[in-house]
Amino acid sequence: MKHYIQHKPWKIVEDGFLPEYNKVSESIFSLGNGKFGQRGNFEEYFSGETLQGNYISGIYYPDKTRVGWWKNGYPEYFAKVLNSPDWTGLKITLNGEKLDLNTCKISNFRRVLNMKKGYFRKLYTAEFSDGKKISIKSKRFLSIVNDELAVIKYSVEAVNFTGKIELLSDIDADIKNQDSNYDEKFWNEIDKSTSVNPYVIVETKKTHFRICVASTTMFFEDKNEKKYLSVQRIESEKYVGEKYIIELKKNKPVIVFKFVSVTSSLYHAKENLAKAAFKVLDYATDKTFKKLILEHEAAWNDKWHESDIIIEGDVAAQQGIRFNIFQLNQTYTGKDERLNVGPKGFTGEKYGGSTYWDTEAYLLPFYLSTAEQNVARQLLVYRYKHLEKAIENAEKLGFSKGAALFPMVTMNGEECHNEWEITFEEIHRNGAIAYAVYDYVRYTGDKKYLAQFGLELLIAISRFWAQRITFSEEKQKYVMLGVTGPNEYENNVNNNWYTNKIANWTLKYTSECIVFVKENFPKEFSSITKKTNFKFEEEINFWKDINDKMYYPFDEKRNIFLQQDGYLDKELKTVSDLRPEERPIHQKWSWDRILRSCFIKQADVLQGLYFFENEFDNETIKRNFDFYEPKTVHESSLSSCVHSILAAKIGKEKQAYNFYLNASRLDLDDYNNDTEDGLHITSMGGTWMTIVYGFGGLRIKNDLLNFTPFIPEQWKKYSFQIRFRGALLKITVSSEEIILENQNGVDSKVVINEIEHEITKNNILKIAHK
Amino acid sequence: MKHYIQHKPWKIVEDGFLPEYNKVSESIFSLGNGKFGQRGNFEEYFSGETLQGNYISGIYYPDKTRVGWWKNGYPEYFAKVLNSPDWTGLKITLNGEKLDLNTCKISNFRRVLNMKKGYFRKLYTAEFSDGKKISIKSKRFLSIVNDELAVIKYSVEAVNFTGKIELLSDIDADIKNQDSNYDEKFWNEIDKSTSVNPYVIVETKKTHFRICVASTTMFFEDKNEKKYLSVQRIESEKYVGEKYIIELKKNKPVIVFKFVSVTSSLYHAKENLAKAAFKVLDYATDKTFKKLILEHEAAWNDKWHESDIIIEGDVAAQQGIRFNIFQLNQTYTGKDERLNVGPKGFTGEKYGGSTYWDTEAYLLPFYLSTAEQNVARQLLVYRYKHLEKAIENAEKLGFSKGAALFPMVTMNGEECHNEWEITFEEIHRNGAIAYAVYDYVRYTGDKKYLAQFGLELLIAISRFWAQRITFSEEKQKYVMLGVTGPNEYENNVNNNWYTNKIANWTLKYTSECIVFVKENFPKEFSSITKKTNFKFEEEINFWKDINDKMYYPFDEKRNIFLQQDGYLDKELKTVSDLRPEERPIHQKWSWDRILRSCFIKQADVLQGLYFFENEFDNETIKRNFDFYEPKTVHESSLSSCVHSILAAKIGKEKQAYNFYLNASRLDLDDYNNDTEDGLHITSMGGTWMTIVYGFGGLRIKNDLLNFTPFIPEQWKKYSFQIRFRGALLKITVSSEEIILENQNGVDSKVVINEIEHEITKNNILKIAHK
Repeated sequence: MKHYIQHKPWKIVEDGFLPEYNKVSESIFSLGNGKFGQRGNFEEYFSGETLQGNYISGIYYPDKTRVGWWKNGYPEYFAKVLNSPDWTGLKITLNGEKLDLNTCKISNFRRVLNMKKGYFRKLYTAEFSDGKKISIKSKRFLSIVNDELAVIKYSVEAVNFTGKIELLSDIDADIKNQDSNYDEKFWNEIDKSTSVNPYVIVETKKTHFRICVASTTMFFEDKNEKKYLSVQRIESEKYVGEKYIIELKKNKPVIVFKFVSVTSSLYHAKENLAKAAFKVLDYATDKTFKKLILEHEAAWNDKWHESDIIIEGDVAAQQGIRFNIFQLNQTYTGKDERLNVGPKGFTGEKYGGSTYWDTEAYLLPFYLSTAEQNVARQLLVYRYKHLEKAIENAEKLGFSKGAALFPMVTMNGEECHNEWEITFEEIHRNGAIAYAVYDYVRYTGDKKYLAQFGLELLIAISRFWAQRITFSEEKQKYVMLGVTGPNEYENNVNNNWYTNKIANWTLKYTSECIVFVKENFPKEFSSITKKTNFKFEEEINFWKDINDKMYYPFDEKRNIFLQQDGYLDKELKTVSDLRPEERPIHQKWSWDRILRSCFIKQADVLQGLYFFENEFDNETIKRNFDFYEPKTVHESSLSSCVHSILAAKIGKEKQAYNFYLNASRLDLDDYNNDTEDGLHITSMGGTWMTIVYGFGGLRIKNDLLNFTPFIPEQWKKYSFQIRFRGALLKITVSSEEIILENQNGVDSKVVINEIEHEITKNNILKIAHK
Repeated sequence: MKHYIQHKPWKIVEDGFLPEYNKVSESIFSLGNGKFGQRGNFEEYFSGETLQGNYISGIYYPDKTRVGWWKNGYPEYFAKVLNSPDWTGLKITLNGEKLDLNTCKISNFRRVLNMKKGYFRKLYTAEFSDGKKISIKSKRFLSIVNDELAVIKYSVEAVNFTGKIELLSDIDADIKNQDSNYDEKFWNEIDKSTSVNPYVIVETKKTHFRICVASTTMFFEDKNEKKYLSVQRIESEKYVGEKYIIELKKNKPVIVFKFVSVTSSLYHAKENLAKAAFKVLDYATDKTFKKLILEHEAAWNDKWHESDIIIEGDVAAQQGIRFNIFQLNQTYTGKDERLNVGPKGFTGEKYGGSTYWDTEAYLLPFYLSTAEQNVARQLLVYRYKHLEKAIENAEKLGFSKGAALFPMVTMNGEECHNEWEITFEEIHRNGAIAYAVYDYVRYTGDKKYLAQFGLELLIAISRFWAQRITFSEEKQKYVMLGVTGPNEYENNVNNNWYTNKIANWTLKYTSECIVFVKENFPKEFSSITKKTNFKFEEEINFWKDINDKMYYPFDEKRNIFLQQDGYLDKELKTVSDLRPEERPIHQKWSWDRILRSCFIKQADVLQGLYFFENEFDNETIKRNFDFYEPKTVHESSLSSCVHSILAAKIGKEKQAYNFYLNASRLDLDDYNNDTEDGLHITSMGGTWMTIVYGFGGLRIKNDLLNFTPFIPEQWKKYSFQIRFRGALLKITVSSEEIILENQNGVDSKVVINEIEHEITKNNILKIAHK
């Protein structure tokens, strides 16, 4: 745990250079615009500890899988996020000595992430070995208006001398992934030039994604363009650079603008990449820096208008939640159905592939509530487009008749993961993907989506469940053998309650959707049944039989659901029995010991109670919460949020708040000592949910927004924005009252503490706290 | 399955060269003398498919572990059998063209393994592109009299020309393992010379084993030493060679003798390795080839006298069992307690480390019955010497107080394997190691071994079991969570019956041994309790409590033991339900499907009934056999033997014979299409057991040999040799009678079909068949 980040409501500030935390800071100061992103690496030479990282969404590489002991069904390739050309380079040399933040004497250092305006700024003074000092101020942003454009404004000032410096502005495409399995480099050079704007075109091996990175560098002094003394153009393997000699006058800053364009074959014909990139550079130089940053800031202002959460009375919490929202908005914009949100977004390589069930379970609600309907919809379409591959994946494992198993980890629809207990057995992910359809339709009312894409996917998932269960002659029930639930600290168990539950729910929901689509979209229904060769009577009846006879492990004595068949044979301890030096158990205990223990990595039965809370009364939730919560070690960043929301629901408000604290500053304070690998992007959706679903009590029931808000006693007031079916609502909660502002569009009905209220457009509603 | 090996009682013959089976043949024609060994590679140049393999027992390398997803407790290094210098090279060039069996035209090819005499012979005629023909005859053996010596007699005859050839006699130490995880080479050169006898001294990285390989090459014509025209001595990185120019006269064979010595730092001071090797070469050249092979054949004759099994009326079966016995005797001689038997012996690299529970469960009986007592004892001492590392291994997994978990796979006592479901959970191996102590003491009567080594090991294993169980409040019984039984087609199950059984048995047997040693070896007992800090009352009482309250899964309805808690929830099919194209399931099915299925890889409950048959009546064994046998796919080479022995016991003689057939020619006929990787050495012990324990019905009860023999109807007669407490007995079984010959030493009592007989030394006893 670290505390070097200052608490500010809108800014992340590192004051004074802490090289030992540099990789953590690089993660925290990451920038992204939905299309590409990067870690907060220095533009300068830096010989210290660093993880260079530039990433382009949707550009991946299928690295050959490395595995100790092969199992049938494993994927041969593991699609991983690709470390991409580094275009940030602005590297100064003075009398042959490099300006290296690791070797020069650095003073007045400050790094700032301005979340409100969406830029990264840095300033410091470097002293060279001969005592000469140069003062640097840089500002960098990845435009969210033109998402193929990045801009650096870089001010260089000679503090105590007048003389020449050398400045190298470069693009380095000779990049490799730190996690490359065979130390291989994944990029091939296609073309490069330094004759006009320097550019490099490289292409990935195997997947043949092609990108062009082009730049133009300009110098100003006293607001006039400044002539450089000379320029040397350098081309080498996957590399271009321009080495300028510039005369610095004491205390007269030279401003360097570096405009960079990143174009890719996802959006342009391969032969036009350089042309497209040059067009972006023309657009940028025409507009100039000032206008570019203004339009960028305005766009961020709009995003904040729709998604900000304001917390009064707790700056740390305020900064924490904004950091989460900022990163979510930097990572995904919903413009392209081929993209999704990786666990590290644009902030690191770890966890390779892009998409986990995190998207459906923890991110969808954020995008549903804070962006246009289409943004969330794209996340669903992404999975629909992978349906064919999910069917192939299930076939590979021996399933038939159009059953689909979506991958645990994927980039393009193919499975990337190769631990049998996860890849083959953590199949509840399939349920979360079905649940996302339900969640989306429930929130948006867009039932046509079912006819268009949703039902086909639901049928394929239901078919998987119908084959994955086994009829136990012994129990005269349908059982689910050999699964791993969300609690990955138990593997290959029988009848994980959550998996049984979500499987059974999927079958039921699919049946309902079938009836709905059949009645309301008969044409689409007929084409779906044809395409899927759906046997109406036979399949629906079998699903009904499973619904009737599904087995759920249950403890009569405690009146609780059992996580899995063998759970009660374990020694039932609580987390308070663990000694501090034993934690986290995933680092301190051997794997077999973890598996035998009762300790739970993340919400499992409770995840089910969260998803399906309508089916259970508060007493049931409470009994299960009281049994499982004390056994949960929360060693996944996706755990606290669910516990927080349930705690809020059953009136354990203090506990709910404590869970929130764990989640919201996870990366800023580096709780788990792993922020240097990148940020926990997907868990940030969970943090947002703890406030809106947990404290605010947001639920959708019968096509209406419901709130049952409370305010943590540490806060004075908090507010959040919600988009709902055309309306944009701002909900403010203080200890006295709840204020609803209908900020635009349409009249809306809202249920607060179970009482329905009408709130007409552009009006405010105040209700005293219950 | 292949059928190119001719059926001969004492020989393995390949007639006509089959390059497509060359790697299979290389495995089958392997040679070994307990200290070193090699695959049947050619001496000549060979550009076709080959797996070069030379191995020296006890010389291994800890290759850095490669694993997809790391789990706490995994070993960082994996000790693997090391491919060692190739000393066989005798390579001919004629007019610049190589004698390469892959490019020359080969006729009259024959490879012969003479099992009776322990040598490998090869002959063929090679035709060069210009029509010149050379005829080759070679004979090769690894002396079992001087086990640092190997000899090649190599005859070269010009068939249709007179002229010069070049012959390269070399030692190539620039060898790498095919299974090297990072393509690394594991040998470093220390020294080499060609000034007298060419030699290379190399040392392994990390483990620093040092070996010297030295050779001397001589030429004869018409029984006189032949002068070569010239010699060129070659030295390069880890390589020495001598290139001779020799004049060949038409139809006048030149005989080449290559004597090779392999000395290692396991037996000599590092600085004396070359000297020791030269001494062996002197011994060899002094004796000459003729005497060397005669003494070698005589030693093999003695081995066969003690271990041969004769089958009359079935040449294929005769050849099969002799091949098994031959390989077992080539692989292990019991001279060195640091050595053990790897799954592939000296015939391949696969499975890396040396020692599995195979040794205790399937090999010990062979060596107990066919060699001096000390040979089997060495296998036990091997484990005892690893006790300290087994205790460390258990500590690493979180166990305490001197509990030991022996590794699943090891070379030097450290765990080599890294699949969590095996490494951490296939803990029944610990039980087999305890059982081996019992088995050895039962067979030999050497109870002093308990006081000397056995008890200390038993206590450590019992302490492991006592910590590995969990008291289930729910069941009010001790349960064993998260294990993998011998059936590796189920992982991480609860209460594997076999594991619970052998654990509980270990506790009981250890308690008995404690009482025995306490009473009979009080001095040793006191030092053991001191060394192990054994708490007599406390520990014995706890073990007793476990004995009383151990939980065993049981099916009341069928009256059978259950393989594990969840077994009855599975769909209970039989192997006959599988379509041929689904088999073997480990190749055709995904891993999760295998895990969910009821199909059993190898004897599991039945392994327990085999070990502990005294505790169960025949009806119980029969019920369980009838339930589990039809569900067993026998996809381990270690399965058929146990099923065969049990089938024999319960009167299913035809089934017993069919299981034997599967086992005995497994490698000769390449049943599983994997003989090219090496031979299934450890399963060969199981094959021996099917005849002696299965058909012969050998058991030790109350310090007496028991037999209940039957003869398969396909056979006329069979006989086997048994050493038992000083006596050497030959048992011959025909359909009419059972003949016992007491071939030496001491008077003996034998129980045949439950009737006790006395058979005095050097006498014969004939009993009519029951």
